Amino acid sequence: MVGTGSGVEMSINGSLPNGKSAEHLTALDEESFDPTAVVAEPVPEVVESNGDGEKEKRDIVLGRNVHTTCLEVTEPDADDESTGDKDAYMASVLARYRKTLLERTKHHLGYPYNLDFDYGALGQLQHFSINNLGDPFIESNYGVHSRQFEVGVLDWFARLWEIEKSDYWGYITNCGTEGNLHGILVGREVFPDGILYASKESHYSVFKAARMYRMECIKIATLVTGEIDCADFKTKLLPNRDKPAILNVNIGTTVKGAVDDLDLVIQTLEECGYSHDRFYIHCDGALFGLMMPFVKRAPKVTFKKPIGSVSVSGHKFVGCPMPCGVQLTRLQHINALSRNVEYLASRDATIMGSRNGHAPIFLWYTLNRKGYKGFQKEVQKCLRNAHYLKDQLRGVGISAMLNELSSTVVFERPKDEEFVRRWQLACEANMAHIVVMPNVTIEKLDYFLNELVKERSIWYSDEKIQPPCLAADIGSDNCSCALHK
Amino acid sequence: MVGTGSGVEMSINGSLPNGKSAEHLTALDEESFDPTAVVAEPVPEVVESNGDGEKEKRDIVLGRNVHTTCLEVTEPDADDESTGDKDAYMASVLARYRKTLLERTKHHLGYPYNLDFDYGALGQLQHFSINNLGDPFIESNYGVHSRQFEVGVLDWFARLWEIEKSDYWGYITNCGTEGNLHGILVGREVFPDGILYASKESHYSVFKAARMYRMECIKIATLVTGEIDCADFKTKLLPNRDKPAILNVNIGTTVKGAVDDLDLVIQTLEECGYSHDRFYIHCDGALFGLMMPFVKRAPKVTFKKPIGSVSVSGHKFVGCPMPCGVQLTRLQHINALSRNVEYLASRDATIMGSRNGHAPIFLWYTLNRKGYKGFQKEVQKCLRNAHYLKDQLRGVGISAMLNELSSTVVFERPKDEEFVRRWQLACEANMAHIVVMPNVTIEKLDYFLNELVKERSIWYSDEKIQPPCLAADIGSDNCSCALHK
Repeated sequence: MVGTGSGVEMSINGSLPNGKSAEHLTALDEESFDPTAVVAEPVPEVVESNGDGEKEKRDIVLGRNVHTTCLEVTEPDADDESTGDKDAYMASVLARYRKTLLERTKHHLGYPYNLDFDYGALGQLQHFSINNLGDPFIESNYGVHSRQFEVGVLDWFARLWEIEKSDYWGYITNCGTEGNLHGILVGREVFPDGILYASKESHYSVFKAARMYRMECIKIATLVTGEIDCADFKTKLLPNRDKPAILNVNIGTTVKGAVDDLDLVIQTLEECGYSHDRFYIHCDGALFGLMMPFVKRAPKVTFKKPIGSVSVSGHKFVGCPMPCGVQLTRLQHINALSRNVEYLASRDATIMGSRNGHAPIFLWYTLNRKGYKGFQKEVQKCLRNAHYLKDQLRGVGISAMLNELSSTVVFERPKDEEFVRRWQLACEANMAHIVVMPNVTIEKLDYFLNELVKERSIWYSDEKIQPPCLAADIGSDNCSCALHK
Repeated sequence: MVGTGSGVEMSINGSLPNGKSAEHLTALDEESFDPTAVVAEPVPEVVESNGDGEKEKRDIVLGRNVHTTCLEVTEPDADDESTGDKDAYMASVLARYRKTLLERTKHHLGYPYNLDFDYGALGQLQHFSINNLGDPFIESNYGVHSRQFEVGVLDWFARLWEIEKSDYWGYITNCGTEGNLHGILVGREVFPDGILYASKESHYSVFKAARMYRMECIKIATLVTGEIDCADFKTKLLPNRDKPAILNVNIGTTVKGAVDDLDLVIQTLEECGYSHDRFYIHCDGALFGLMMPFVKRAPKVTFKKPIGSVSVSGHKFVGCPMPCGVQLTRLQHINALSRNVEYLASRDATIMGSRNGHAPIFLWYTLNRKGYKGFQKEVQKCLRNAHYLKDQLRGVGISAMLNELSSTVVFERPKDEEFVRRWQLACEANMAHIVVMPNVTIEKLDYFLNELVKERSIWYSDEKIQPPCLAADIGSDNCSCALHK
């Protein structure tokens, strides 16, 4: 984009502001300052062990040690530019990597990422360093930003979640976790002595937030579906009625895709004597926040109800090359913060200061192409395909559950870890799950099902080895183990 | 990447696991579940005002209201696919946007972003949803990741900052702010009752962290250069000797590019009776963390000194299409956390759970191409060009300062806001600054200087209007106002 400048010694045409020639300046300059002298020798030594024999054990490495497979950064040879060896090496690494990505993308089923997107039209923008520094609604002096796209996307979500343009504040985040970190932080700033309540099947970022923010946090039990157990919630609320409540409501839990009943949560709060100015609800819609509005029977997520914020991931149902998300809250909360909190005098109510300016353009592009109608169709397809998968699994005697409002099919954890890795299934205890995203077609599911059935007949060929019982995880109705089938 | 599946009604070849035909299944399925029925009507209504007349005032909007210039997301028309109107519209928006980006990139001087990069070879990877979920050293089951590149990059920085592979932990962050949030969080977890000390010219994310984490925070005065004032630091430390100290040390402050004297900071702590197990130092190297190792006279940032963590931005000196950064800390700190802290049982010691997998590849690519030697040359060029700019400014009688170890030139704030916006200068009080990055050439600086001198002769043509005095900001030696010149 910009040519290389080779320093003051280069030939400069045109008059300089002070009328001096470049040569003259160089001479003057070098008397007082010689940059060559202050630059140290490059290529740091490889750091050796201190020789105390006992090395620190890398005990958080629970998986394979990535150090052994990592792609080392090597110093270019002096003649690399002429030989082209380095360029050739890197091209070959990238080509191999691309092949791996193609293969892994093809076999992916376990994570809720829509891998079906085509952003070819946006390739031209990769040459720019696009950064939406700070607040989306306040332009900074850095001109290479994409706020006009970002606010367009936010407005679209505001319409979806029924809040006026003049009443909301929000931004495009780096991921669902950032949405939760932000929503819970806003809740804590509104109620500094509030207690955070979240079901035990909430995303781990909710408990991470509690720890980070030094908040009291109470875990609520769940039903077998994975939904928050409002009876238990009531029991936990009652002895703490003197303190405001900050709630995390899951619009799709990580493992079971369970949707907490927002209406029942609000009703429970009211029954326990909480007026609307004594609680703050953050809706973690990372997974299904974009699907639920199109499902008739779902408890509607809307700012017409007394909620404080909603977040959703952008790389999940929408699909995006990198993680991103959308966070919306009420402007009044942010205004309150910006009046009271010193750090917001920096005019930045986001968690991260520098923000990826490409993500809003990806989202803008897809929302424009698909529209509400396009998403409706995709939700329909996902729900159909998820039911298909669940029915097929149950049909061949495999324990499986699908929540009514969900496209996450929970089933018996495959016995072979290699199979799990090949299909990139997320597992917990005896459960595995497949999140049926728009890129998960019937063909792909059939391919998977055929493989699973074939492999399973091998794993369980010996009658002494039985598939696990999943009654405790997904209910005995959904369990096909020897005892419950 | 993946074909579209049109639902269960499609024709399916090959046997299904349960031997049923697809048609049969569809019929069965629809008895119990009809996805069409559960999907609500799309296109939400535009939310109207509640009619209470008085609208919430959007009082945090200090700049231009982006709503008025934003690019609305519109619903596709039914015939869009046949007419191609929507595609044409979006292509025209993107082409116009690209032109703006080119123009703005050309005129950019104020922010420390290296806008000179060519990642054409990586365009092929934009089709993949690359996500380095959680820990860089622990593979998750999601296969579409780039940990092998990430760890390669981390190893390169470990060598730069002199820590053994087996002794460090780190990850590639979303930006410098995330590095600071992480470093300070690690410090707080090591010393839960520690006090955070930071110079008042530290990046605002440091004070944001203190607020988020509910830490006691003491601001330290600065010298006129912008460096931390260790005499004041001593005064603030002494009455608090009963509590551990958590320190933010700036390797390049935001406004003046000042480098805190790490050695003097450590010496001050020792003089106040702090043993090495009673303080934690986080080095915020967002700006110059990658430059200082190549500058001989700079206080060396190295893990051979008693520091806890270092962070650096990837989109600044290296250059990257989106913000990113590198965060390195001692493995022992992370191990201590992972043993004690419930949320780390999730095997995730990062702030964000989902992480952009493209950023590590961008960094890996540039580090490989340039190497330590390439960065050395660029540091040299930047320091030279920064000195050139400072000398030129002083030569024509404009107040200006350049710290010895810095490429940030602070000078008199231009009188015209339009000029400031055109060159995207960051300003504070009477100061503006230019951060000389590798893409800032002598030609670009001359172009800027010529314009500034020309404009300035207009702004100050009336003798009654004088340029501001900058003595308080940058010292009277550097001030060229009527009083100090």
